[in-house]
Amino acid sequence: MRYLDDKYLLMAPGPVQVSEAAQKAMSEPMIHHRTSAFAEILARVLKNLPAYFQTECPVMILPCTGSGGMEAALVNCFSAGDEIIAIVAGKFGARWADVAEVYGLKVHRLNVKWGHAADIEDVKRMIEEFPNAKGIMTQACETSTGTWQPIKAISKLTRNTEKLLLVDGITAVGCTHLPMDRWHLDVVVAGSQKAFGLPTGLSMVAMSEKAWRANEKATLPRYYFDLKLELEANKIQQTHFSSAVSLIKGLDVVLSDALEHGMDHMIMRTQHLSESMRKAGKAMGMCEYSLSPSPSVTALVPPEPVDAGKLKAHLAEKYNLTVMGGQGDLKGKIVRFGHMGDIGNSDHLAAIEALGYGLKDLGAEISEEQINTVLDQAESFLKMCSNV
Amino acid sequence: MRYLDDKYLLMAPGPVQVSEAAQKAMSEPMIHHRTSAFAEILARVLKNLPAYFQTECPVMILPCTGSGGMEAALVNCFSAGDEIIAIVAGKFGARWADVAEVYGLKVHRLNVKWGHAADIEDVKRMIEEFPNAKGIMTQACETSTGTWQPIKAISKLTRNTEKLLLVDGITAVGCTHLPMDRWHLDVVVAGSQKAFGLPTGLSMVAMSEKAWRANEKATLPRYYFDLKLELEANKIQQTHFSSAVSLIKGLDVVLSDALEHGMDHMIMRTQHLSESMRKAGKAMGMCEYSLSPSPSVTALVPPEPVDAGKLKAHLAEKYNLTVMGGQGDLKGKIVRFGHMGDIGNSDHLAAIEALGYGLKDLGAEISEEQINTVLDQAESFLKMCSNV
Repeated sequence: MRYLDDKYLLMAPGPVQVSEAAQKAMSEPMIHHRTSAFAEILARVLKNLPAYFQTECPVMILPCTGSGGMEAALVNCFSAGDEIIAIVAGKFGARWADVAEVYGLKVHRLNVKWGHAADIEDVKRMIEEFPNAKGIMTQACETSTGTWQPIKAISKLTRNTEKLLLVDGITAVGCTHLPMDRWHLDVVVAGSQKAFGLPTGLSMVAMSEKAWRANEKATLPRYYFDLKLELEANKIQQTHFSSAVSLIKGLDVVLSDALEHGMDHMIMRTQHLSESMRKAGKAMGMCEYSLSPSPSVTALVPPEPVDAGKLKAHLAEKYNLTVMGGQGDLKGKIVRFGHMGDIGNSDHLAAIEALGYGLKDLGAEISEEQINTVLDQAESFLKMCSNV
Repeated sequence: MRYLDDKYLLMAPGPVQVSEAAQKAMSEPMIHHRTSAFAEILARVLKNLPAYFQTECPVMILPCTGSGGMEAALVNCFSAGDEIIAIVAGKFGARWADVAEVYGLKVHRLNVKWGHAADIEDVKRMIEEFPNAKGIMTQACETSTGTWQPIKAISKLTRNTEKLLLVDGITAVGCTHLPMDRWHLDVVVAGSQKAFGLPTGLSMVAMSEKAWRANEKATLPRYYFDLKLELEANKIQQTHFSSAVSLIKGLDVVLSDALEHGMDHMIMRTQHLSESMRKAGKAMGMCEYSLSPSPSVTALVPPEPVDAGKLKAHLAEKYNLTVMGGQGDLKGKIVRFGHMGDIGNSDHLAAIEALGYGLKDLGAEISEEQINTVLDQAESFLKMCSNV
């Protein structure tokens, strides 16, 4: 094996590999969140975080998973009975629409074929059909299929109106081009275990001025997810509830590092890793599942006779590589690679190597020579990218 | 100095000092939550967790702080318009009542003087006055004052009725005598950064059969905090949302260790540390603030001319010891010591030593000789305790 060794490789669409520097910061002796030492860290994190969202709006850090942030987005902007348009192109779109319904919103679902981007004409038609809709909610990247949605185009339909555009950016913020301010996005939600390269446990939520205006009128019940309480606390370098000290210390390291290298660096890196993986996958007989692939997650369909579920299990057992399979109808049909977190070139190449041998082990028509050629090409590509 | 050295001491009522073993488990390379490796850990944690609550009911782990767990307790048991009796004896009692009001419950507050336990006769009167109340909510230990509430006595008023008894056990579960099943408690909430000795980020919630029956009828909106979704996911060794893998791995270590030593061990240990701190405080001229002190948190009033706020700041600056001050009206009046988490005898004695010298530095009438006598007594007491 050229790259594979005993190292455990986590190449899922989150959680992801955590860098040593972040791990070290999180392992320091516990400090209390109501101390000047922590206030200093939190102040720096709150100052640095907006760059990740490409915004000048404040970004709040909630001690919950991304799903909690998605719920926070809804309960802070709407009232029971409000109408909303939900783009449902996969598991997470369906979940967000479900949450809205639980809270008594009238949800108009635009069901999009899995693996496809929403057709902007369909979105327009929905807006015409439901003129009272107070907002549109969509994933930036639908993680369940690795599919990018046409956020910029949708934002053109909402930016000069009072409609809010809510974006689940959980597998997008920080690793894809999703400029909140430039595109006039109103609520953007992120999660710590994705491009931030941290353990699960934080969701970050940014709200535009338009969203804060909607917040004034929104009457859905909220306490734990009350973003106004959080914003007020942040003004005095505190979080409203107990701070998740360890994760926020990890976040401090990650943000400082990202700002040092520039946000473009991480977006380009993710782009390069996904391009490399797509090329390698295709060269080894796999098809890309998504017609609108996101740079953060790559969904690949293995060639006959390989079952994707078996491939996923085999990669874990034999090559110590964790990737994810499909969800719902896609179970056993795709494998999903994440390109976020602390992934070195050698990790990425090892994953390609494992994938090649995994396919071969399970009966795909691929030779060792072909795998080596794919690895050569991937190596050269990454080398070229790092010289750009 | 006999015990004080450069070590940072965290003796707050949470977050607390994290053990090396837990820290180590949390620092291992990240694994994905939808893997058999994680399922095995989660299964063990879910099996071991009920012992901490002294229950045979399932305990669910939510990725949020204790306040999230308190909100979960309410939204899973009640409907808008339901009446509830809230014992409000401090900051956290007030917060829980506020959450209930946000969700449209009719809250009847029994306001108890801070530092006091609720008078059981008053609780009886409230139940008579509001016969339609569907439950009573109370802290076990009101963390803001270190005060224990008469949970056992209150439980006798609810156990043979359809009323639910909801207990915020955030600074109680695992370190005090709070037998959920024996006392017929219906919902008990805990938090990771307290007796579990972990970073902030998890809340554990246990519900009785009676509470699950109430859950069937409860219509308050819930998704992120939907305990039924969580219970179902737990049956197949998953959490409903992304698992907080690192914290759950830490929890696994903490629970295994606690079960090895026996739950009584930790309850006794907390009892001993608080007794020791109370004795030492009194011997150094301090008063106990609470008339019903909880073993988990000790609130002390410094002697004239010492201001508690200045004492807290001085202990942090000069002796590297973090304790908490008072909240609300108690600001500047008390200092609060927590007795949870990974506290060795030498840590505890160092905290007493710092307290003694801190008082002396700020003008209290106390000599070095007196401090040494207090330390001798504390040492003997802890030695005696460990021989029991």
